[in-house]
Amino acid sequence: MRGVISSYFLKTFIACSQCKKYNLYNLSSHYSSKSAGDGDGDADVQWPRRVVTGLQPTGELHIGNYFGAIRRCVRLQEQGDDLMIFIADLHSLTTRQEPSLLQARVLELAACVLAAGLDPARAVLFVQSAVPRHAELCWLLTCLATHARLAHLPQYKEKAATMKEVPLGLLLYPVLQAADVLLYGGTHVPVGADQLQHLQVAGALARTFAHRYGRAFPAPRALLADDGSDRLRSLRDPNKKMSKSDTDPKSRILLTDPDDIIELKIRKAVTDFTPQVTFDPETRPGVSNLVSIHCLAEDKLPEEVVQEAEGLTTAQYKRVVAAALQRALAPVRARAAELRARPNYLRDVLRHGAARARVRADAVYERAAALAGLR
Amino acid sequence: MRGVISSYFLKTFIACSQCKKYNLYNLSSHYSSKSAGDGDGDADVQWPRRVVTGLQPTGELHIGNYFGAIRRCVRLQEQGDDLMIFIADLHSLTTRQEPSLLQARVLELAACVLAAGLDPARAVLFVQSAVPRHAELCWLLTCLATHARLAHLPQYKEKAATMKEVPLGLLLYPVLQAADVLLYGGTHVPVGADQLQHLQVAGALARTFAHRYGRAFPAPRALLADDGSDRLRSLRDPNKKMSKSDTDPKSRILLTDPDDIIELKIRKAVTDFTPQVTFDPETRPGVSNLVSIHCLAEDKLPEEVVQEAEGLTTAQYKRVVAAALQRALAPVRARAAELRARPNYLRDVLRHGAARARVRADAVYERAAALAGLR
Repeated sequence: MRGVISSYFLKTFIACSQCKKYNLYNLSSHYSSKSAGDGDGDADVQWPRRVVTGLQPTGELHIGNYFGAIRRCVRLQEQGDDLMIFIADLHSLTTRQEPSLLQARVLELAACVLAAGLDPARAVLFVQSAVPRHAELCWLLTCLATHARLAHLPQYKEKAATMKEVPLGLLLYPVLQAADVLLYGGTHVPVGADQLQHLQVAGALARTFAHRYGRAFPAPRALLADDGSDRLRSLRDPNKKMSKSDTDPKSRILLTDPDDIIELKIRKAVTDFTPQVTFDPETRPGVSNLVSIHCLAEDKLPEEVVQEAEGLTTAQYKRVVAAALQRALAPVRARAAELRARPNYLRDVLRHGAARARVRADAVYERAAALAGLR
Repeated sequence: MRGVISSYFLKTFIACSQCKKYNLYNLSSHYSSKSAGDGDGDADVQWPRRVVTGLQPTGELHIGNYFGAIRRCVRLQEQGDDLMIFIADLHSLTTRQEPSLLQARVLELAACVLAAGLDPARAVLFVQSAVPRHAELCWLLTCLATHARLAHLPQYKEKAATMKEVPLGLLLYPVLQAADVLLYGGTHVPVGADQLQHLQVAGALARTFAHRYGRAFPAPRALLADDGSDRLRSLRDPNKKMSKSDTDPKSRILLTDPDDIIELKIRKAVTDFTPQVTFDPETRPGVSNLVSIHCLAEDKLPEEVVQEAEGLTTAQYKRVVAAALQRALAPVRARAAELRARPNYLRDVLRHGAARARVRADAVYERAAALAGLR
């Protein structure tokens, strides 16, 4: 049954690279076992599996970020994956940041990631700007990337359309992302479906580099979420994604929200006028979003929670969802509070992670630089 | 008299940033004492004078490169300037390079610079890619630069017009140039008039950084050549600049050309049907170019050499110019040959220079990174 549910989540709108129009696209065909993307065929043979992912230190984390990114990484670690997770402070500069807040946000993100269960002895947790090779490889890839390809990416076009003056960093965003992953020989990247095209840029750059200079990197593959965690909806308007940047704070539940706020936000969540609980994201996005949250909080499938909720009104079901979410988040929130009180420990973890990351980055970069004739 | 001659060389075609048309532009108004550009007014007060310049390791050096770039730097060193001179291998990747030749070209350029008299104990000579901060600062500046401004620079438009797919590195070229200079707190940059707009980009980025985060860099000023060394003409077609990329090798004299080849190329130089030697670059570009070469070789003014050449035909004068150039280049060529035979010494010089450059770059970059919130 899980396969049937998954296939809904694997459908997404992606812009056609030829006609630039958006199409509903079934990613299941790109999706084999646990990975998807346009790998170079023999990635698994030559390159040991390594998962690389970044998190932006911008604003407070909501449950979409928690379940969709952080908890997913922790689960990959638990599976035994070789995991590198970095705090993408260089990426955050592509939009305007308040410099005096950035360090606090970096530490806050580190606290949340560790609170979620990331083990710094197994996974490598570090800050992007502490490893100069990210920017260095970004330059090498910039010389291989073309303006035309990047300017047609939907995320760039959307963001650029709202700006009077477009900072170049926004155009280069996917090139730095490519550098982030290729720098560690990353073979797999946990992404939401909306990031799939950026990962394809990384794959294309790896192949262009190989063609021009010789093989230095695997073409990384996407690890797509199959639990809907990458598409939680706004609680105030289920037609929109849950987003950090939504002006209405009631549209999202933060990882730091106390129990009473969680209950309030779920109670106020916009649903519809049908009292029964069903899971049908296309016709009943509001109540289906609550089902999704419930599933994520209790690691259940939509069929299970819908069956359990039989006979409940939507109002009664909201109390069930709120309680499930409170139980899931309370221990993480408590550990995050403890860690937040130990900034020196957090800095030590990040310093240690950066030292390990630099060793790995040096090996890959030096080889790439030599192939390009720089050594 | 020198002022009058100089003012000719200070006239150049520059594209208007408003209407995009080229205008004959008198740089003399931008030119005070030894520096020009759009400084931030108090550059000289707060920032100690430091000259920063880069040379691309692409192809063999011709006498325009030698007199216009290398010898100028050596003379700045002799004046007591704090000089940093780097071999711009990262920039060279913006166009297609043969990786297996790049290291040899880097060493060849180092040999020529040292042969010209650069003293590695006084000036800092290094390879750009040996200092990761160039790429790191380039990223910070990329987040402040706009696509619109860079896409309108004449050099970009010219190069991009000839390409089917424009590599992004070409668009970012002036941003990396800005990073090269700002990274060392460079206050002055020896440039040709065609690079003045790129330097203005660096000044603008320094000011944008100051406005957004706080002052970290001086806005660098141009040191324009006043001896015509930045505008030597092709010997085969005096309407074109002498260029590394000209398909006709007789269009330029290489720093490595032996005496007989120098004589041959000067003898074959296209002039006109007037036998007398005069200096009038607009109506007699060919013979005036020989006068310019003669002036550079013997450190004379055009009036002096024209007076000395009175009574000579152009054919006779060519022998005078060839002899002057042979005398000027022979010792440099001999020292370059000695140094070329000592690659380990050259590598040592570059390694030592990179170590010194890294110390200076670290100080400036760490301060800039802290202002931007990355530390």
